[in-house]
Amino acid sequence: MTGENEKTGPDSDDGHRSATDVLLARRMGIYTQNEAIVFMSRDCPICVSEGFGAQSRVRVSNGKNSLIATLYQTAPGLLKNGEVGLSEAAWDRLQMEEEETVRVSHPRPLDSLSNLRGKVYGQRLKTHAVKAIIDDVVAGRYSDIHLSSFITACSARPLDHAEMVALTDAMITAGSRLHWDRNPVVDKHCVGGLPGNRTTPIIVAIAVACGLTMPKTSSRAITSPAGTADTMETLAPVDLDIATMRKVVEQEGGCIAWGGAVKLSPADDSLIRVERALNLDSEGQLVASVLSKKIAAGSTHVLLDLPVGPTAKVRSQDSARALSANLMAVAETFGVQTRTIITDGRQPVGRGIGPALEAHDVINVLRGDMDAPNDLRERSIALAGSLLELGGAVPAGTGVKLATQTLEEGRAWQKFQQICEAQGGMREPPKALYSRPVTANRTGKISTIDNRRLAQVAKLAGAPDAKAAGVEIHIRIGSKVSAGEPLYSIHAEAPGELDYSLDYVAANEDIIDITET
Amino acid sequence: MTGENEKTGPDSDDGHRSATDVLLARRMGIYTQNEAIVFMSRDCPICVSEGFGAQSRVRVSNGKNSLIATLYQTAPGLLKNGEVGLSEAAWDRLQMEEEETVRVSHPRPLDSLSNLRGKVYGQRLKTHAVKAIIDDVVAGRYSDIHLSSFITACSARPLDHAEMVALTDAMITAGSRLHWDRNPVVDKHCVGGLPGNRTTPIIVAIAVACGLTMPKTSSRAITSPAGTADTMETLAPVDLDIATMRKVVEQEGGCIAWGGAVKLSPADDSLIRVERALNLDSEGQLVASVLSKKIAAGSTHVLLDLPVGPTAKVRSQDSARALSANLMAVAETFGVQTRTIITDGRQPVGRGIGPALEAHDVINVLRGDMDAPNDLRERSIALAGSLLELGGAVPAGTGVKLATQTLEEGRAWQKFQQICEAQGGMREPPKALYSRPVTANRTGKISTIDNRRLAQVAKLAGAPDAKAAGVEIHIRIGSKVSAGEPLYSIHAEAPGELDYSLDYVAANEDIIDITET
Repeated sequence: MTGENEKTGPDSDDGHRSATDVLLARRMGIYTQNEAIVFMSRDCPICVSEGFGAQSRVRVSNGKNSLIATLYQTAPGLLKNGEVGLSEAAWDRLQMEEEETVRVSHPRPLDSLSNLRGKVYGQRLKTHAVKAIIDDVVAGRYSDIHLSSFITACSARPLDHAEMVALTDAMITAGSRLHWDRNPVVDKHCVGGLPGNRTTPIIVAIAVACGLTMPKTSSRAITSPAGTADTMETLAPVDLDIATMRKVVEQEGGCIAWGGAVKLSPADDSLIRVERALNLDSEGQLVASVLSKKIAAGSTHVLLDLPVGPTAKVRSQDSARALSANLMAVAETFGVQTRTIITDGRQPVGRGIGPALEAHDVINVLRGDMDAPNDLRERSIALAGSLLELGGAVPAGTGVKLATQTLEEGRAWQKFQQICEAQGGMREPPKALYSRPVTANRTGKISTIDNRRLAQVAKLAGAPDAKAAGVEIHIRIGSKVSAGEPLYSIHAEAPGELDYSLDYVAANEDIIDITET
Repeated sequence: MTGENEKTGPDSDDGHRSATDVLLARRMGIYTQNEAIVFMSRDCPICVSEGFGAQSRVRVSNGKNSLIATLYQTAPGLLKNGEVGLSEAAWDRLQMEEEETVRVSHPRPLDSLSNLRGKVYGQRLKTHAVKAIIDDVVAGRYSDIHLSSFITACSARPLDHAEMVALTDAMITAGSRLHWDRNPVVDKHCVGGLPGNRTTPIIVAIAVACGLTMPKTSSRAITSPAGTADTMETLAPVDLDIATMRKVVEQEGGCIAWGGAVKLSPADDSLIRVERALNLDSEGQLVASVLSKKIAAGSTHVLLDLPVGPTAKVRSQDSARALSANLMAVAETFGVQTRTIITDGRQPVGRGIGPALEAHDVINVLRGDMDAPNDLRERSIALAGSLLELGGAVPAGTGVKLATQTLEEGRAWQKFQQICEAQGGMREPPKALYSRPVTANRTGKISTIDNRRLAQVAKLAGAPDAKAAGVEIHIRIGSKVSAGEPLYSIHAEAPGELDYSLDYVAANEDIIDITET
């Protein structure tokens, strides 16, 4: 290896050096989400001497931080001699300052790709192999191509118990870990797939009002129109750092924060973005994603809600039992007590699908409004009751009673408001500017509702990025409707998205099936 | 769907319209290889009304052509109001002219993703499902994430016979197809994995000199340091359009062209780029890739070389027989006669690994130079002999004799030069500016050579993009060497790449194994 002598720094043993690879960094003002991109002139001497071309993966370092980026090349004139352009994501991750220089060099070969290839071809992933992959993911060394291959391989070659444990462990140790000087620390999670099933804020409010400690970290949507963090964000800030989260929990007994902001299981966010593009969410990654976040968050007792239905994420009682067994077995390895509850997943819960629409349902239930969706209320009480028992707040068999009282007497609503205030202030969820009803094309009784395609309608309307977008359902399975009566309304923040969603509905008339009576 | 009335055009039934989605296209001078990228201001009204964000997939159309691109957003000032920036790849594919406008809209939902997901979860790919995927790939609707998932799924869930036939057929019909008014039209292909095994130019020269018609189309490297097209390109132009190729074949009886330039099986190039990044090359995709190009090229008789060795692409005689059976069975479905030959793949063939280095070997054999690599010569004669028999140019059992005479009498060399001239003129392969020997660390006998890692050395040195880069081998299995004696030399066009390659060698001392005697 050629190279000048250089002060040993945080990145001293990584990458290659030469005396001429220093470039003045220029902030390009190009937003790419979290993709690190650098721009170098086609005739830049470093491109020539290092053999870099468009789409090369390059290492960029400013001494303090380093990352792997994709290189695009530019025609003469766009950049000055000796300049390298950085996308906003690259600029932020390197914590660049104006007039700072960077080095651009070849990255180390991505050794963990051989582990990934082994998995593709059917080898079991050993602990060190998973750790190598996840460390590379967290360090930003995997491009979208590599991330997609890893996610696909884990779906096509399902992970076994040891692999799930290894993946969970790798995802925990790649990020921060919270420790609480309290025990128990309770948590709950719904294994997705059911639109509108937004029980978490209600359960946290009940459990914490009853004295349990519940520092809840939630994720954003993976393939759904809203995650709990997306919904909660319309009611209060959720991107709490660890210090703030700790303060909220010490003061109020619980919180409802976005897990990504506290860097718990940071690999998950990279994986989730690609899972979303593929609409894939494998069982092994699901187990690791759920448990790594709970364990990293310091939870000791975890309740898991598994909705089952023909168009839910879990399709059958058998699959639910298998998933439950995997979750329990992996959790046990880490010394965490879990309870799983298999629930009805045949249709959406509540009325709203989409961040703000679901937030309105949550508020209605907590306030005890007359028109609060009863299904969401009942589910929340059942799960909260079970959690109160799991956490030892009440003797077995009395959880539901206490949960009901806590909700009815307004103590849960009060606690929820206190948590929102402690997180930075409660706010009113937005309402969409555009909405359009979708009507019944015949008279009859609602026989089935396709959760997946209804979620797709909400996503095409802009959810979860457009907070107020989504679907508001006016019927349930068994409802009688007349032709022309509204089945649901689509809400959107932009007319283009409303059209996009309506086009999909026009091509999918059987999302809600009506049997003639 | 809202939208103005509009003249029906080539893209009239695709995408969404509104009166305000017309933007002035600006050529950004940003090179991204073949990735289509568009740049829009964050505060552009279309982004707001359509709900576009960074990394959105958008449809771009100029009336003549349309494509799907990835959107990056820009800070104020980079683009003027009403402007959209296009990467060079997007600009070229749309065949844009200066001052032209484009429409940017939501793409249709990518329906074929459900076929892809089905495959991931173990369903067999039906004919229409494969066709839908490949059509979307060719139309540029698949992002790298989707391409990577498809490639990984086909590796993790190997394709069965019907799937291979369907994939081959979809890849043929997605591109151009050549028809020749001659029969037989012969072809040969080596199922890669063996560095330096550059027999094709020699075989074409022999076969054509003996009167067979051989319009050879070759691919560029997938995971190797050189494909035949890469090597041949250092000797003559290979990016012939169909008219030129036809002219060359009519005049000379054969050609050695790059398949991509004649748009045979165009999906293959998109897939290959991602396979290269993953270093994955599944059997089903290999069969479809090989046969789709041969069939689209109008071949009637195809000879297949399958090198077998512990570090070749095919590892064992059993795998070779299985692959051979798949290739023969799929070819038969399309009415193509094939013969497969299983060859020795324990070590590289010839001396050079890398486009220009291999070209020098080819020329040496064709010219009958005293120091021509004998292994390359012998293999070429054996394969050419077999092809002469398969194509009916000689009775069974006499092919090798005719092939040897054709080479020794200089008729193959003469034909090769004529083909090069007809393709645009023969040229001298380049030589690298930088080279460095790698020496034996002990005295003994060469016992094994790791093809894969030696190929990696050549790739790190810059091959195939750097034409003169690669590895020149000085020994063979069984050679006796003394400590300090050169085993091979690394050639590079840039010092950074030479260093990069040498670092890899330093960490991989056992690429060539020496047994002490």
